[in-house]
Amino acid sequence: MLQAPPPAIASTASTIRLRRLGIDTYQEPVVYMHRDCHVCHSEGFEAQSRVEVTLGDHHIVATLNVVSGAFLSPDEAGLSEAAWRLLGAGDGDVATLRHPAPLESLGHVRAKVYGRRLTATAFDAVIADVAAGHFSDLQLAAFVTACAGDALDLQETISLTRAMVNVGERMTWSEGLVMDKHSVGGLPGNRTTMVIVPIVAACGLRMPKTSSRAITSPAGTADTMETLAPVDLDVAQIQRVVERTGGCVVWGGAVRLSPADDILIRVERPLDLDSQGQLVASVLSKKAAAGATHVLIDMPVGPTAKVRSAHAAQLLERQLEQVGKALGLQVRVAQTDGHAPVGRGIGPALEARDVMAVLRRDPSAPTDLALRALQLAGQILEFGGAARADEGLHLATAVLDDGRAWRKFEEICEAQGGMRVPPVASQRQPVMAQRSGSVVAIDNRRLARTAKLAGAPKIPCAGIDLHVQVGEFVERGQPLFTLHADSPGALAYAAEYAASQPDTIHVIEDA
Amino acid sequence: MLQAPPPAIASTASTIRLRRLGIDTYQEPVVYMHRDCHVCHSEGFEAQSRVEVTLGDHHIVATLNVVSGAFLSPDEAGLSEAAWRLLGAGDGDVATLRHPAPLESLGHVRAKVYGRRLTATAFDAVIADVAAGHFSDLQLAAFVTACAGDALDLQETISLTRAMVNVGERMTWSEGLVMDKHSVGGLPGNRTTMVIVPIVAACGLRMPKTSSRAITSPAGTADTMETLAPVDLDVAQIQRVVERTGGCVVWGGAVRLSPADDILIRVERPLDLDSQGQLVASVLSKKAAAGATHVLIDMPVGPTAKVRSAHAAQLLERQLEQVGKALGLQVRVAQTDGHAPVGRGIGPALEARDVMAVLRRDPSAPTDLALRALQLAGQILEFGGAARADEGLHLATAVLDDGRAWRKFEEICEAQGGMRVPPVASQRQPVMAQRSGSVVAIDNRRLARTAKLAGAPKIPCAGIDLHVQVGEFVERGQPLFTLHADSPGALAYAAEYAASQPDTIHVIEDA
Repeated sequence: MLQAPPPAIASTASTIRLRRLGIDTYQEPVVYMHRDCHVCHSEGFEAQSRVEVTLGDHHIVATLNVVSGAFLSPDEAGLSEAAWRLLGAGDGDVATLRHPAPLESLGHVRAKVYGRRLTATAFDAVIADVAAGHFSDLQLAAFVTACAGDALDLQETISLTRAMVNVGERMTWSEGLVMDKHSVGGLPGNRTTMVIVPIVAACGLRMPKTSSRAITSPAGTADTMETLAPVDLDVAQIQRVVERTGGCVVWGGAVRLSPADDILIRVERPLDLDSQGQLVASVLSKKAAAGATHVLIDMPVGPTAKVRSAHAAQLLERQLEQVGKALGLQVRVAQTDGHAPVGRGIGPALEARDVMAVLRRDPSAPTDLALRALQLAGQILEFGGAARADEGLHLATAVLDDGRAWRKFEEICEAQGGMRVPPVASQRQPVMAQRSGSVVAIDNRRLARTAKLAGAPKIPCAGIDLHVQVGEFVERGQPLFTLHADSPGALAYAAEYAASQPDTIHVIEDA
Repeated sequence: MLQAPPPAIASTASTIRLRRLGIDTYQEPVVYMHRDCHVCHSEGFEAQSRVEVTLGDHHIVATLNVVSGAFLSPDEAGLSEAAWRLLGAGDGDVATLRHPAPLESLGHVRAKVYGRRLTATAFDAVIADVAAGHFSDLQLAAFVTACAGDALDLQETISLTRAMVNVGERMTWSEGLVMDKHSVGGLPGNRTTMVIVPIVAACGLRMPKTSSRAITSPAGTADTMETLAPVDLDVAQIQRVVERTGGCVVWGGAVRLSPADDILIRVERPLDLDSQGQLVASVLSKKAAAGATHVLIDMPVGPTAKVRSAHAAQLLERQLEQVGKALGLQVRVAQTDGHAPVGRGIGPALEARDVMAVLRRDPSAPTDLALRALQLAGQILEFGGAARADEGLHLATAVLDDGRAWRKFEEICEAQGGMRVPPVASQRQPVMAQRSGSVVAIDNRRLARTAKLAGAPKIPCAGIDLHVQVGEFVERGQPLFTLHADSPGALAYAAEYAASQPDTIHVIEDA
């Protein structure tokens, strides 16, 4: 038996000079250290170790990449852009590195993976660690996967939503109603928000709208709005915009209303996974934190939309209403037609073009987008008491037709920092009908994928311009849609995929 | 409607000079490109893009990190160590970069996440893409998580196992029996294999043993054996060793018997997730590929072992036998006592020390390890017909006692490349009993975790040396175990955790 006396224990933390390496790891904090670095040796760090980096009041947990190349010296620690930003570091700052405390909340993640129910306390622990950046990307992926589909029940969804609200910022408003809306997505081009907000605000109801960037779609409302005006506003700026104009359309992520959700989304996006519980928590945590009192949910239902059946819609509707009630929100769900894309553009700039056409009453404006926006705006006007029952649509239409909505939209864009002209793609290529006949179906998922392959939403000008609608007759060789991209590579990539999926726009020869 | 003629499409691939950056990303292939790089622009690549890199006959799919720092020039692409190795690149080589084909098999992963059953074709597609390195770490994490727990049924497990065998190398042997064994793990220090193989080989049965490195435990057999002899042998080398000596103990990962499993394991390890289906597929795919005809499975059962109940053991046993049958393997399961660690050492070098003591009949050798190994060796001798029923244990004991097993082990180590002396830890610290009384339980999971925090299995000398057994009486202040590490930081980290879990070795004051 080994009975040697223990050696004296050295400090369990080491200090080292920081260097900004300028490596964009897509928000995962990574620390780079040379394999001959004294901190690696004294602390026993190795590739993939989780390392706690402390600088003043800031501390992060980063994944270690060990470097043997000459670009990093053994007496410095390089940081990825995300790590640099989260730490608020400056070149030459000296940070303290140590082993992070073991992540006890991972036990809850494992329990969920194995199919067990989690308590509110468990969600609080997981979400606090997620928001604090203590989870690695792999651990985030496991949590997101374990919660995917219908793995969370009602009580778990309420717990997750509350946990998300608790770790974020909150907006507070003076007395009175605060209207909000959300579309559960899955329908390319469904940019009604940017039409609804100016209509509702023009009718005197307050509507501070925080929107998300795309998760699995080719554009989120924040991505689209950003091609027309700044959307990265802080809470004080948002409050000024809403005081002055009655409404806004800003990016919710910039105000950290639900920072845990923002972190989960960055893993959900490349995995392209949907989760009913996470969807409800994501939507309602942000609405609660934004101080909303009334939330209308636009839920497109269709075979290739995000919600594919009346049954799935009903389940989701009940969860949204019940979780909303638990959080003190009045939630109404409007099931809408989700069979075909809305508008013509798919991708931030192309969708912005459609929105502008509707607001400016351009004769070429897509009528489906206008009608859908008017119906939802009408419901919000009724929900908030600005219109009597069954008179909302009429009021909304009048406000759009007489130009008040357009003027309100210009006012909001100016208040947010000034109106912009959306970018235009340098690379375009039409995709032609392979036969003459009738368009019997449009596959939203494949269209969305094609637009993403072309570069949307990261490249704002990229996407698809759709030229046909379901029911229309087309001639062989007629363009069905045009691909937009800003590089020949991305254009070719999208075109190749489109060519491999000839039935994305399904044309059947007439008998 | 936009009807402009399409511009000519440039090539969908670009070439660029490669540079080895020497960044160890723990086997994820990563490509680093400057944000001003012409390939990023022409192809539309962005942070986290998946990029196909082709060099001669080799091609990989890597994750892109965009660099704005000065250490990388815009006319070169840096590669992580994993990417460099997989491509077989040399500095200055010019590679072709393009968008990879969309990963259709991800649709199957999503289906599994949502709880659907996968067909054999689906598993073939997923596993082929995994083995080819087409999955990112996030995607691997989603697949591993979706298959965790009991998410795979019998038919799915058979399909997964076959798919894994199909993408790997295979070993073939001349006529006759080929014995093999596997321990499902979860019991620290359970290094019976290194005792069993020389006994069985000394009795004339062929036993080419490929072992794994640790997945979630502080040491795998390959990690332990490596402190005594080289284990990274290729198929031809293994065949020579076995022809000459009748046995071997080598690392299975080096021969790519189940390369998809090796890739999944690198994600399973940090996630610390168990999956019954993946466990069965992992074990049996390697046995089938190694050319085994008879496989004995050592399954320790106990409240803190990997298999925790008789019921769980029964389910796993039936799956192992049925999947084995489907793959043409005779599988027998030996349920063994999984209540306490086996031997005294936990960690590669400390476990090797115990094995050596048993083989050399050192009076201080841990008798539990010796007895467990003899019982399993006896069963294999009976299973393979080298001993009559109920005479296996007797034969095994005789072969160990008369030194034939030790001589055979030396012979095997020499044939594998030469015997070595295991490394010894520079940092040690005992953990004392807080009270006097009887040891009523030892928590394997917490002990394993403590050993891992000390650095095992990556640091071979790190781990735990256990000084007490269940049932033993201890005095307050007596050392229960000693922590071994090679850095003060890791030692302190493990000691801190051990102090926070005082009941890892549960001592109850005698009444």
